[in-house]
This record gives sequence, structure tokens and C-alpha cells, in this order.
Amino acid sequence: MGNGTKTAVLLVDCPDRKGLVAALSTFLYSHGADIMHADEHRDATLGWFFMRIEWGAADFDLSEDDLRRDFSNFAEPFEMRWRLKYPGTRPRVAILVSHYLHCLNDLLHRHESGELNCEIPLIVSNHQAAAPLAAFYRLPFHYLPVNQENKKTAEETQLKLMADHHVDLIVLARYMQILSSDFVSQYPGGIINVHHSFLPAISGAKPYHAALERGVKIIGATSHYVTAVLDAGPIIEQDIVRVTHRDELEDVVRKGRDLERVVLSRAVRWHLEHRILQYANKTVVFD
Amino acid sequence: MGNGTKTAVLLVDCPDRKGLVAALSTFLYSHGADIMHADEHRDATLGWFFMRIEWGAADFDLSEDDLRRDFSNFAEPFEMRWRLKYPGTRPRVAILVSHYLHCLNDLLHRHESGELNCEIPLIVSNHQAAAPLAAFYRLPFHYLPVNQENKKTAEETQLKLMADHHVDLIVLARYMQILSSDFVSQYPGGIINVHHSFLPAISGAKPYHAALERGVKIIGATSHYVTAVLDAGPIIEQDIVRVTHRDELEDVVRKGRDLERVVLSRAVRWHLEHRILQYANKTVVFD
Amino acid sequence: MGNGTKTAVLLVDCPDRKGLVAALSTFLYSHGADIMHADEHRDATLGWFFMRIEWGAADFDLSEDDLRRDFSNFAEPFEMRWRLKYPGTRPRVAILVSHYLHCLNDLLHRHESGELNCEIPLIVSNHQAAAPLAAFYRLPFHYLPVNQENKKTAEETQLKLMADHHVDLIVLARYMQILSSDFVSQYPGGIINVHHSFLPAISGAKPYHAALERGVKIIGATSHYVTAVLDAGPIIEQDIVRVTHRDELEDVVRKGRDLERVVLSRAVRWHLEHRILQYANKTVVFD
Amino acid sequence: MGNGTKTAVLLVDCPDRKGLVAALSTFLYSHGADIMHADEHRDATLGWFFMRIEWGAADFDLSEDDLRRDFSNFAEPFEMRWRLKYPGTRPRVAILVSHYLHCLNDLLHRHESGELNCEIPLIVSNHQAAAPLAAFYRLPFHYLPVNQENKKTAEETQLKLMADHHVDLIVLARYMQILSSDFVSQYPGGIINVHHSFLPAISGAKPYHAALERGVKIIGATSHYVTAVLDAGPIIEQDIVRVTHRDELEDVVRKGRDLERVVLSRAVRWHLEHRILQYANKTVVFD
Repeated sequence: MGNGTKTAVLLVDCPDRKGLVAALSTFLYSHGADIMHADEHRDATLGWFFMRIEWGAADFDLSEDDLRRDFSNFAEPFEMRWRLKYPGTRPRVAILVSHYLHCLNDLLHRHESGELNCEIPLIVSNHQAAAPLAAFYRLPFHYLPVNQENKKTAEETQLKLMADHHVDLIVLARYMQILSSDFVSQYPGGIINVHHSFLPAISGAKPYHAALERGVKIIGATSHYVTAVLDAGPIIEQDIVRVTHRDELEDVVRKGRDLERVVLSRAVRWHLEHRILQYANKTVVFD
Repeated sequence: MGNGTKTAVLLVDCPDRKGLVAALSTFLYSHGADIMHADEHRDATLGWFFMRIEWGAADFDLSEDDLRRDFSNFAEPFEMRWRLKYPGTRPRVAILVSHYLHCLNDLLHRHESGELNCEIPLIVSNHQAAAPLAAFYRLPFHYLPVNQENKKTAEETQLKLMADHHVDLIVLARYMQILSSDFVSQYPGGIINVHHSFLPAISGAKPYHAALERGVKIIGATSHYVTAVLDAGPIIEQDIVRVTHRDELEDVVRKGRDLERVVLSRAVRWHLEHRILQYANKTVVFD
Repeated sequence: MGNGTKTAVLLVDCPDRKGLVAALSTFLYSHGADIMHADEHRDATLGWFFMRIEWGAADFDLSEDDLRRDFSNFAEPFEMRWRLKYPGTRPRVAILVSHYLHCLNDLLHRHESGELNCEIPLIVSNHQAAAPLAAFYRLPFHYLPVNQENKKTAEETQLKLMADHHVDLIVLARYMQILSSDFVSQYPGGIINVHHSFLPAISGAKPYHAALERGVKIIGATSHYVTAVLDAGPIIEQDIVRVTHRDELEDVVRKGRDLERVVLSRAVRWHLEHRILQYANKTVVFD
Repeated sequence: MGNGTKTAVLLVDCPDRKGLVAALSTFLYSHGADIMHADEHRDATLGWFFMRIEWGAADFDLSEDDLRRDFSNFAEPFEMRWRLKYPGTRPRVAILVSHYLHCLNDLLHRHESGELNCEIPLIVSNHQAAAPLAAFYRLPFHYLPVNQENKKTAEETQLKLMADHHVDLIVLARYMQILSSDFVSQYPGGIINVHHSFLPAISGAKPYHAALERGVKIIGATSHYVTAVLDAGPIIEQDIVRVTHRDELEDVVRKGRDLERVVLSRAVRWHLEHRILQYANKTVVFD
């Protein structure tokens, strides 16, 4: 599977019709693409087509600009939405975090060990707790307290930071503030959150308390794209762990932290490797 | 762990206080019990104590009647609720089923192969579909159609059948009728249902449709005791399986059937082996 | 995903080279194929290419015979190995079983409920135990005792039965005899077995005993194609379940039975839906 | 379940006989113990008894010294082996690591966040790579290169360090040197290792390569106590993850790292909370 550092990727979706696989693969082959992975999906109910193609670009005869121009012409009659990753570019990721640091610690360690192929130009927090970890990994840290009074101003400052640093993806690594719909609308499909329950079960606050109260035998965590509706965006990944009557709140929270780490880091990696397509408030994940 | 055919089991719960383990184990030891498994739990929040003790009865010096009388005296000052299984008795189980037969087929095969230590004096259905399977396993089958008009009468007939056959446990093996609260109140903690979702996510009808619609990455099934509130009784067991964007409704339904079989049969086995205590709309499962 | 009753499937593998996806999809598109699923894989180490294409055949302009002829010509210069499933044909499956019936019961129930898209022209056993189950599902049952003396003759009888019934796939549903390499060589890649351990751990006899002895915390089961080397053929599917110190042999065996059912039935279904390619003693499973 | 900071724990095993639960619970109750968890197990085959009792020590009337003396007298006629954790004492853990840092990073983060109730007086490594991480968590780091020539001397230095720092438990967090049997014999049942396969499958070097080569569909990791025989000590915990034909070596290694973290940290936590008993080259884990 690899992490795609040296390959190009096209993510495409459009109304379904015959001949799409042939047309796409022929277009790329005619330019010298060495297709390494081709994954395709159709939603029969919606009549929609999805495809991810990853190719080695050694003999590819189009520059990024030329490819964008030519593919745009190719795609138009099919009404394709498409995203291109050309080798050598690295997405720029901002991480927002509050005082729980397990997801941040996990993401930064994975980043340093090469699992996450991106730049991290900034970490933003409404607490000081993450500052030492950011410093350890030599990443810029911005402390921006948020409260009911300054929330609007704080978000404007955050958005300016994102714009200044040309951020492509915002990761909410247990960021405990709800983003306004204004903020969210600036990054459609570009904000990933981790929710500490098995959505759609138990949305909202204190899901571990609610899970214990209901006496579930399995708890979960969910990573999803953020939309204007709380905890209702397209689900990217979920994972679960068993709990028993022996597990008290602190045990459930501890077990849950392991899930949160895993589902968030998988979602971020898949997004960075251009494996996710969003549609109809769902995701296609070509893993 | 074994299936407890030749052992006695005491299931006890009561307000927590010091010395309960010592008192219970000393009582049994003083009568020659050879304790094979002792499992205990406290709910610190509720201040409640739970214990399951299983012992080899070879040298035990009390008959079932004497034990019931003596233990009743012992238990009273502790305000204990208790259930006793004496070796040689087998619980009597009625299975209610509609036209999906995978859970029934699974339960009957397990029963025949010795996994479920019980009698099955009757299978009741509002469809004819299960009749051949019941016949194959030489079990009495009662066809009782249920519709909006006759529901009350049908339930009375069902209840009479249960009473006539001295039924201890009613298993709803994908029985597609909602039991009235009158019916449920006759068998408190004595009806086990399987719901084809990961409760509390997606209660009610057509949960697989709802799971697909929400775009979840994991589906589940839940076995639980039936209470007057639909899908809200104490959860006994849950299990899950991954789904992807490739899974269409028929795939989700197929994967779900495997979960339903497993969570229902585990719940029934644990109940029959006296491993489950119900409290505060939850369960303690001493597995 | 569906079960492919009305679709055609091509399974292809060949030395990797540029343009294979384009060539294959264009060939099919040019004959009116409505491609529903296209899944592709390359083994970079071996330089090998694999593809599965499933298409709706409503507007497809080639009969099965014409397609076989034309595709044979197409495939030759690429040195492709290929398998075709044309709509309407159903593979013919023989099941071999001994006295443990849980896998057989599971397969037959799934078959009847439509999960397994095949004919089952015969069930063969060296015990009588499976006869009633075969009768219940109205399937021909052949009792063929096997012992050290008659093994060679018995296998000849079995092979003749397979040939007379035009069997495409042989499923060993806990068949407790080891097939000779002569037998196996008659059905290369056409015999599926279930082994009750997590291969390559604990091959050979009595794996549950060995698992208990080693004190593992997880047991597994494995379905695989049978080759001349015992328990060493290409693995198709594996699954696992947790065990604890509480689990005695009978518990481990019971838990294991649930795994065996699941991994065997998945393997059989995937084989029937032409989802599996074998190479280098491994499998590609396009699920 | 909790992490046991304020509670006392007794871990006991001895030849099985009647009355052990009663005797143990009565002994503790008579001294004012408020039993919070009592878990018991018998190995019927070996005729051996195991028990873990955890109690709130608020009203307990024995000091640690008095308890050790009195319990020693109590235990002798039963031939009990026993371990006592008295509230307030924290085990002292040394971590040995090489150049893969994911397990170390995980353990140190968990330690700082309070999941692991122990002191870490030293981290020892044959590489410099872990030095910054140790510094970040303000833990003493000892760089001790090991090669074929100096191995014996290096181990003597390591052992002296362990002795000087009164180390109770040694954790091998992907430490890539094989400890000599002399070293191991100094810490019987006191060294925990993580092996990156699903033991007993694929012991020895390069297990991920071997797993890929065999074409398994699931990989695993195993934490175990170290004995003189490589990868053959009592298994504490195992976990698994699915792999497919798409996973190349780097993917398998990445997925495996997540398993290694989890199985090692669980093993360490259970050991620190006195939940593990070793016998017959196996473990009883009272979780």
C-alpha cells in the first residue's frame, strides 16, 4: 500500500455511466502513467461513480499544471469532481487541541516516525498544556484562550492563522470547543474530529458516562468530518473495545483513549493519502 | 469454565457491606461445598454487592429443599436477592420466532450438540416457516398467527402455553412482534431478545437500513432482557463487524445475521448457566 | 457487493506491465459491459498483476462462447491466466464431512437461505452422522467409510463421485481424513479446508489442546486451499476469539466452532463469487 | 476496576483444597479489610488454586510488616506462594529500549498521564535515539552500547544498574538484544517483553516478513514474561489486526506497531496492579 510519497493520485467522483473506468485508465496510460493502485466504487442507489487511481510518475509526461489543465478538459463532459495529488507536495495540517494530550502525542509521534506524510505548520490550543509537547517536536504552538465572551474573535484569529499558514486540513485532536458553523463553512470537508463514542450512539457531551449508564458491553470511538451539525458529519473510521461490569468510569475513559488515538490517526492518514471521498454525508474509503 | 451440568450455583446480590465474601464462602464450606468458581463484583457508586459461586456438590450435605430453607435464613439479615441452581435441574426454554430462521437454526443446533443445557418444550411462531426445523429436532411447534385484531387473544394463548409448559425463559429469536407490557410483566428478567443494531445506536425498526443511511463503518447486534420499553432493557451481550462502502443492504443484513446468532446464543447460554445478574437496567455477566 | 447471480465476472492475473487496466476495461466496454466492480492489485515484489471485474451483462454483446474465444485471443499476448463466470451458471460443490456437524449445518443453512450461490450435488462422509441433516435439506448423501486398509479405494470412489457429478469445488467441512497428494492433485486450487488454529501457529492434530498447553490468550481458525503439504496451502480467511485462563478445553472447542463456521463459510462464498486469486502460495481476496 | 493506588492486594496460589476462599476472606475480614475485588481460579487439571484479593485499607488493622508476618504464618500450612502490595508503595520499573521508540513513547506518555502506577528510575538503551524522549519526561537515561565483544560486561553493568536502582520489573520495549540466561535468571518472572507476532506462530527474528511470506490474513503481537527460552515464556496478552493482500511490508510493520504498543502497555499495567500469576509456563490474568 505504501504512503504515496512518490506517486500521483487522482480522486474522482461523478454521475455513473458506462465506460468510466476505461476512459480514466486510458487517459492516464496515454500519458505514460504506471498505474499502481486502481480502486473503484459505484453507489447503485444514487447512481454515482467513485474512483481512486495512484500511479508512479517516473515516465509520466505531464507537469502538474499541464495535468490539471488537460484533466479539467477531460473531466468536464463527465461532470467529474476531482482532486489531484502530485508527487512532492505535502498537505499542510493544523492541529487544534485542548488539555487531553493523548491524541496529539500520538499524531506527533507518528508524524515524526514518517507515518503521516504532511507538514504541521502550527498547533493551536485553548490551554497551555500542549506547549511542551509542541516544543519537543519543534512545532509552532499558539495559545488562544477561548471563552463565551471572546469566542467569535478567537475563531477569527484561528481562521487568520489557518489562512496565513495555508492550511489544507484541520485536525481536532480532542479539541473541546464546538466550532461555529461559520468556521466550519470555511473548510468544507477539511476538518476531522474524533468523537469518543460509537456514533450514531451517544452523540453530544460525556459519552463515556452515558455508555456506563446504559450498561453497554462495547464502547467505541468515531472519527468524522465536521459539518455544521454536531457529531453528524460523514464518518471516516470507527473502532471498538469490550467493557464489562468491572469497568468503572476511569477504566472506560482509559480504554476509550486507545480507541480515540487509533481512529483519529487512521482518518488523518487516509485523508493525507487521498483515500477518502465524501458524498451523501458518508465516506468512501479506498484503503 | 464448563457448562455446569453437575454443579450447584448461587447467584446473590445485596447492599454492600464488609464480610460478605467471608460469610458466603464460610456458609457453603461448612456444608461441604467444593467451590469451583467464585466471582464477585461491587458497584461502588450504588453500594451494591454481587456474587456467583459454583460448587461441586459431591460432598455437599444439604438437599435442594434444605439448602433453600437454610440459605433463606442466612440471606435474610443481609437483604440478599438470590437464585439457586441445584444439579440435575434443567431450565425450560420457549423459543418465539417469525420467518427469519437463522437464530432458531443456530440455537437448535447448539442445543442438540450440548452447548445449551436446557429443555425446549415448545417453539411458537406467527409463521409456518419454522415448522420443518422444529420437526427435524423433534420439538413441539405451535403456529399462532398474530395480527392487529387478535394480538390480545394471541398473547393470552401464548401465556397459557408458557404456563402449561412451566417455561422459565422465553427467547425471542428474531420474533417480529412487539410483546405487550402485560406479557412482559409476567416474565420479569425472563425474556431475552436480539436486536439487530449496536444499542443504544439505532433502536426501533429497520436498523440495518438506518446504519447504511448514516454511513457507519461498524454494525452491531445486541442481546438484552426485554422490559416494557422497546429496545431499552438490560444489555447482555453485543458484538460487531466492520462494513465498508462496498456493502449494500443485502451484505449488511448477511453480516448482521452472523452477529445476531452469536450474541443471542451467548446470552441464552449465560442465562442458563446462571451467569447473569440484572440491576439498575444493566447486567453483571460472570463469564 | 451483492452475490453476483446476474453478473459476469472475470478474474485475471499476469505479469505486470503498463496499460493493463486500460486494456481490460476498454475490451469489456467495447462490448457493452456495464462495469459494476473493478478491483485491481499488483504485487510489486513479484511484478504480478491481478484484477477482478464484475459487470452487468444486460447490454453485453458476447455470448459465453464468443467471450471465451475473443478474450482468449485478447489475453494471450499478456500471458494472462483467467477465469470467467458467466451469468446463470452455478458452481457445483461437494461437501466432505466426518462426525462434527457444525460447519455442515452452517453451510447448508446458508445455502438454503441464498447466501451461497451454488449447487450441492452431493455430501460425502466417512460417518453416518450427517445423513439426517442431508436428508432434511434434500441433498444426496454418500456414506463411504475410510480406514487404513481401504483408503486408496475409498479415494478412488470419492474421485469418481466428484467426476460423475461434475464437481467444481470440494469443501472439507471438518473432514477428519487427510487427502492423499494424488487426490489433491486432481483439484488444484479446488479444495477448501478449515483448520482449527490460527495458522501458521499450531498446525497438525489437536490444535486446541496445543493452544491451551501454550497458554495463548487468543485462538483462531483458518480456511485455506488444500495442497499436498498438510495445513500449508494458501490461506483464504482467518478469524480469532479471546480466551482466558478460565477457558477449559470444552470452552475452547466451543469458541473455536464459531470461528470454524465463519471462516469456512466466508471462504466458500468468496470462492463461489470468484473473489479469490491464488499465487505464490498466497491469496488475493477481492472482497 | 481502578488502578489500585490506595488499596492493598494479595496474590495467592497454592495446591487446591476445600475452604480456601473461606479461609482467605475470613482472615482479611477479621482484620477489618473492606474487600473490593475478589477473583479466584482453579486449574482442575493441575489441582491448583489462584486468588487475587484487593481491599480498601482504611480500617485495616495490620501494618505492612505485621501483615507480612501474620499472613506468612497463615499461608504456611496451605503451602501458599503469595505476593503482597501494600498501599503507598510503587513498583520500580526499568525500561530497556533500542532504536524503535513507539513502545517507549507510549509507555512514558501513559506513565505521565497516570495510567501506570510506578516509578521509572532509569531507561537503558544500546542506542542514543531514546535520549531526547527520556529527557523530555525528565527520566535518567543510560547509554550502554552492546556488541558481540562486550555483551557479558554490558549485562553486568546493566544488572548493577538494576540493583542500584532497586528495580522490581524490567520492561523490554522493543529491546533488540537477546538477554543471556544468566541475566534472565536474576529476574524470574520480572522481565516483560513484546514480540511482534502472534505467538506461538512465527517466533524468532523478522516475524512480519515471515507473516507476509506465509500470506496470513491476520497479524498479531504478544507480550510475555521472559524465560531462558527465546519467545517461549508465559504469554500475558495478545492482540491482532487484519491485513490484506494490499498490505506491503511497511504497512504490516505500521499496523504491528499499534499492536505492540497496546499489548505491552496492558501487560505492564496488569503486572503493576498485581493482576498476573504465573504457573506452568502460563499466566492467570485477573483483569
